[in-house]
Amino acid sequence: MRIAELSRRSEVPVPTIKFYLRTELLFPGERTSHNQAQYTEAHVRRLKVIRALIEVGGLSIAATREVLEKMYAPGMSAVDSAGKAQFAMVTQRPVIEDETWERAVKETDALLDRLGWQVRATNPARQSLASAIATLYRLGQTPQLKLLDDYAKVARQAAEAELAHLAGETDPDAFVESAVIWTALGDVIFSALRRAAQEDIVTRFTSPQE
Amino acid sequence: MRIAELSRRSEVPVPTIKFYLRTELLFPGERTSHNQAQYTEAHVRRLKVIRALIEVGGLSIAATREVLEKMYAPGMSAVDSAGKAQFAMVTQRPVIEDETWERAVKETDALLDRLGWQVRATNPARQSLASAIATLYRLGQTPQLKLLDDYAKVARQAAEAELAHLAGETDPDAFVESAVIWTALGDVIFSALRRAAQEDIVTRFTSPQE
Repeated sequence: MRIAELSRRSEVPVPTIKFYLRTELLFPGERTSHNQAQYTEAHVRRLKVIRALIEVGGLSIAATREVLEKMYAPGMSAVDSAGKAQFAMVTQRPVIEDETWERAVKETDALLDRLGWQVRATNPARQSLASAIATLYRLGQTPQLKLLDDYAKVARQAAEAELAHLAGETDPDAFVESAVIWTALGDVIFSALRRAAQEDIVTRFTSPQE
Repeated sequence: MRIAELSRRSEVPVPTIKFYLRTELLFPGERTSHNQAQYTEAHVRRLKVIRALIEVGGLSIAATREVLEKMYAPGMSAVDSAGKAQFAMVTQRPVIEDETWERAVKETDALLDRLGWQVRATNPARQSLASAIATLYRLGQTPQLKLLDDYAKVARQAAEAELAHLAGETDPDAFVESAVIWTALGDVIFSALRRAAQEDIVTRFTSPQE
């Protein structure tokens, strides 16, 4: 198909497609004349993944490129590719390594030990968690640390449900794509459902049904 | 206290404090001479809330100002102030109101009906949810819609745990501050714990213990 058709199918405007080609997020089509190229279903699919990463995950062009490299690295299992891509999806914030930070890292280690979870030292989730805990300390919100165990419980349930769902996918590329897209979307969906649930609970509490 | 002490106590640099004063996110101190002012514990506390909204919640200056206005609006109950502040914390993305969007809105309504949750039409969580569902449609990830009910279950558990925790807070300002800070941090913490749980589950699945 030509670029206009690719644009229609992927819902990505032609100038944006050209930008993705220039920045090498999208691999080139097969050149058929000096100013025309043919694109395939693989291009449609790749554009959808790029959109998911940029529009939903809020990733930069550089971060998107890194995730795509991990997703389609040759010689890796689908599970490993998905894992590495997910590591690359986390935007690491700069950390102030003061006493509070050290305390937060210890609290994170203690939590993961208590849960008995096997989590590599390189998993950026450790740093995100320590960073959030350090913020609770800095803002004087330490009583809220008690909520960490409740959150761990629900996060595990979410992870189990999504991995059980993914386990049914037999095509390795589709597995990796679904894992990456759902990683980005799952956060947004949890956040929205949590706010919806909060309103329902508060409404019931403050205006009991007669 | 003077501005240097306020900076030390709040861990916010003096130029940033001056910027917050100029943009009226922070209320002025009591002027003691033409170039000096005295600040109070209320300033320390407000600076912590501003940091939470900007650094953790990722809010813009304009959005932060809106949230602060809702948080401290006179004549509102703490629960209402917290609710309104939370509405203001959601960054609404522009929506393309096409057929896919209409379908996603219907799916959102159906989900909330099925759950029996009372969620106002004005709650931005509805739009965030519809937006995420529309993305699943657009990316051809419709099988993942099955995960919505699992996510609703865990989101409700999280909301119940945090509201039960908050219910113990008797000072209305502290209640609103904790609610707003935890709203921003809870998303980050869930996201990190979910990734940690994913690694643990995948590790156990792919390398069984002997």
